[in-house]
Amino acid sequence: MTQIQTKYIDIFDKCKTNEGYFGDFRVSEDQYFVSPVLDSVPGTVMSFNGQDKIMWATNNYLGLAENEDIKKIAVETAKEWGVSGPMGCRMVSGNTREHVLLEEELASFAEKESSILFNFGYLGIIGTIASLVGKDDIVIMDKLCHASIIDAAKLAVSDPRNLRVFRHNDMNSLEKLLKSVNKNRKGGVLILTEGVYGMTGDIVKLDAICDLKEKYDARLFVDDAHGFGVMGPSGKGVGEHFGVQDRVDIYLSTFAKAFTAIGGVSAASKEVVDWIHYNARTQIFAKSLPMVYVKSLRKTLELVSSGHDRRHRLFQVSQKLSNGLRELGYFVADTPSPIISVYVPGGDLQIGLHWVRYLRDNGLFLQAVMYPVIPRGLFMFRIIPTASHTDEQIDTTLQIFKRLRDEQGLKLNVNLSAVDRIYANN
Amino acid sequence: MTQIQTKYIDIFDKCKTNEGYFGDFRVSEDQYFVSPVLDSVPGTVMSFNGQDKIMWATNNYLGLAENEDIKKIAVETAKEWGVSGPMGCRMVSGNTREHVLLEEELASFAEKESSILFNFGYLGIIGTIASLVGKDDIVIMDKLCHASIIDAAKLAVSDPRNLRVFRHNDMNSLEKLLKSVNKNRKGGVLILTEGVYGMTGDIVKLDAICDLKEKYDARLFVDDAHGFGVMGPSGKGVGEHFGVQDRVDIYLSTFAKAFTAIGGVSAASKEVVDWIHYNARTQIFAKSLPMVYVKSLRKTLELVSSGHDRRHRLFQVSQKLSNGLRELGYFVADTPSPIISVYVPGGDLQIGLHWVRYLRDNGLFLQAVMYPVIPRGLFMFRIIPTASHTDEQIDTTLQIFKRLRDEQGLKLNVNLSAVDRIYANN
Repeated sequence: MTQIQTKYIDIFDKCKTNEGYFGDFRVSEDQYFVSPVLDSVPGTVMSFNGQDKIMWATNNYLGLAENEDIKKIAVETAKEWGVSGPMGCRMVSGNTREHVLLEEELASFAEKESSILFNFGYLGIIGTIASLVGKDDIVIMDKLCHASIIDAAKLAVSDPRNLRVFRHNDMNSLEKLLKSVNKNRKGGVLILTEGVYGMTGDIVKLDAICDLKEKYDARLFVDDAHGFGVMGPSGKGVGEHFGVQDRVDIYLSTFAKAFTAIGGVSAASKEVVDWIHYNARTQIFAKSLPMVYVKSLRKTLELVSSGHDRRHRLFQVSQKLSNGLRELGYFVADTPSPIISVYVPGGDLQIGLHWVRYLRDNGLFLQAVMYPVIPRGLFMFRIIPTASHTDEQIDTTLQIFKRLRDEQGLKLNVNLSAVDRIYANN
Repeated sequence: MTQIQTKYIDIFDKCKTNEGYFGDFRVSEDQYFVSPVLDSVPGTVMSFNGQDKIMWATNNYLGLAENEDIKKIAVETAKEWGVSGPMGCRMVSGNTREHVLLEEELASFAEKESSILFNFGYLGIIGTIASLVGKDDIVIMDKLCHASIIDAAKLAVSDPRNLRVFRHNDMNSLEKLLKSVNKNRKGGVLILTEGVYGMTGDIVKLDAICDLKEKYDARLFVDDAHGFGVMGPSGKGVGEHFGVQDRVDIYLSTFAKAFTAIGGVSAASKEVVDWIHYNARTQIFAKSLPMVYVKSLRKTLELVSSGHDRRHRLFQVSQKLSNGLRELGYFVADTPSPIISVYVPGGDLQIGLHWVRYLRDNGLFLQAVMYPVIPRGLFMFRIIPTASHTDEQIDTTLQIFKRLRDEQGLKLNVNLSAVDRIYANN
């Protein structure tokens, strides 16, 4: 054959380079910082490299991952149903009475007319957004929205110009976009935001966004992954926290955080939920949420609903640890969520990783965040407290952070304007 | 405020119409044909509306959904781990030794260097394709590819013009596209195909596609959702069936069909799998496959590997039922997969639904397929046999199809050229 005269680029050539997310880690075959093997059931102490570490890196906010009542239901359901059922998508052979009941309970908890269960949170986000956004509709998204929301928005719009991004939590930036798209508007406008921003711990300015969306005749979608079960007096999320749940058009959450399961839910008016049910490709063409999760989640929802003490303890742990870190001189962002973001001056990857290794060697497991997630020159220790952490674990953690400061000579004078840039404090 | 002078279209207006997928069913609030409530554990007999039906609509090909050995592992794992763990994504806190072991076992079964587990099949498809396709790369896809592959391809390409579609299983159409894109090619070319096409039951012309992809320096991705565990002497899928597994660059399957779980896997060379692991957003930013599934799947893989008798029985059930239907005068597509597609002349939705109701009332639960999935003028009964179905269930099914023919006056003379159009027999 003479067809092939040029040597074409191979789609796999990139796999040999150190490009892409985490390229440096990949080519060095690192399994210490990336994909560490943790062979423990979820809890406040977990085993890494054969040694127990205090775990500050799972979204087990209310400590329900270890709950024996939920586990009991899971075991009973597995005995009856195995983990295979139901087989198929909701529409054909994957619907049961339990799915319908959980949807009713979730709708009631979220104070909406109706709700729809999803097989996986990421797929719920894609399914919800892509099913609702039509040819002439515009999507306006907070810049810090989660990867799943970005993917959903990209897939949803008919033209990339129909997707607009506003500065994180910046109401001037949002209003400017709303004004601008309304000039030549043919279809609807959907604003996408998170409730609690998991990486930074700050929360959406939900009351202000509700005002704007009403002023400009838009609709509002809130992904409250880190707020559902956590924020608000009854744990109903950021809508309850701000007292504006009735003004949120579509309230979505994954079950992968405080609910410590898989799957997710969108709650909205009946006609919107029905539309999603009959139009979300990620649900119509994929297996429904397994029964072992559906039944467990009914118990979880009960415990979340009555979980005032757990929420109280979660915020207490967060407060104690934040205060202690501040007393040590660390800069901790001041946010209404329980997530603790500790900023120190830094920017050199190797030095940052050295700090993480120091903390791990001394008994703490937590996540470190650097550029490009946060501005250059900053390093962030991300700490996720849970209701299960003990005062002793908090004290131990503070002692280790003290030693890190003293033995590793950390500078603690953070560039505040760089932090302000993250939180759009202006 | 005077900003709002026009009444804009609301993004929710469409929810009040009968537009969209299944719009007629939605507005009529149908729960009989769409999302029927089935309160039974998976099996060959399931309860619908309080009555037992012979189930021909789940992808439980090898009958493993009811397997007691898998169930035992699931129960043991739930006792130890609950259903919450691991918490978090593989990269941060969701990786365990069991995940790594299952990946090694799956790579070995799929005869590839390496494999990566996915939290959900749909997300594995999006993660795999979107992570590999770069700015200048072209995607060429079979027209009948599953919704998840279409979504993945749309999300993956940098420009809609980089996504090209060939006629279902039509090698002339594929070659024409490969020639055309090679004229001005800057990047790589990825061909996307399924192994067994779940809706029609026909299988990819894999040997011919391998020849073409090599001739035109492209790469090949095969989603073998309905073939994995089913096709080939050892159940390794369509690659084994054609003896060309080594020429398939990325072999993907969901666990939602023969493996009767959730999740999925991509198997490929080590460098490609590593790239996906470090670049697939749907995995980097979402919870990993739960332990209760990982441990159960290790047992499932063992049973699939040694499942010669189950596969033999599956094809025997398929053959018996197909032959019986043909003897009754029904036109059954001749395909190498066990899926049975029965075509009759039809096209009127109400008449088609009446037939489905007749079958259900008489004890059969199966799926019906109409335009736009198949050409106008055709109606398809889609039957999924499993290794668990008994000869008695086959006989009962044939009796009911005989009564349907006689009592409902079905015409059976199918327009063969319309069927040929579906299967690209030309």
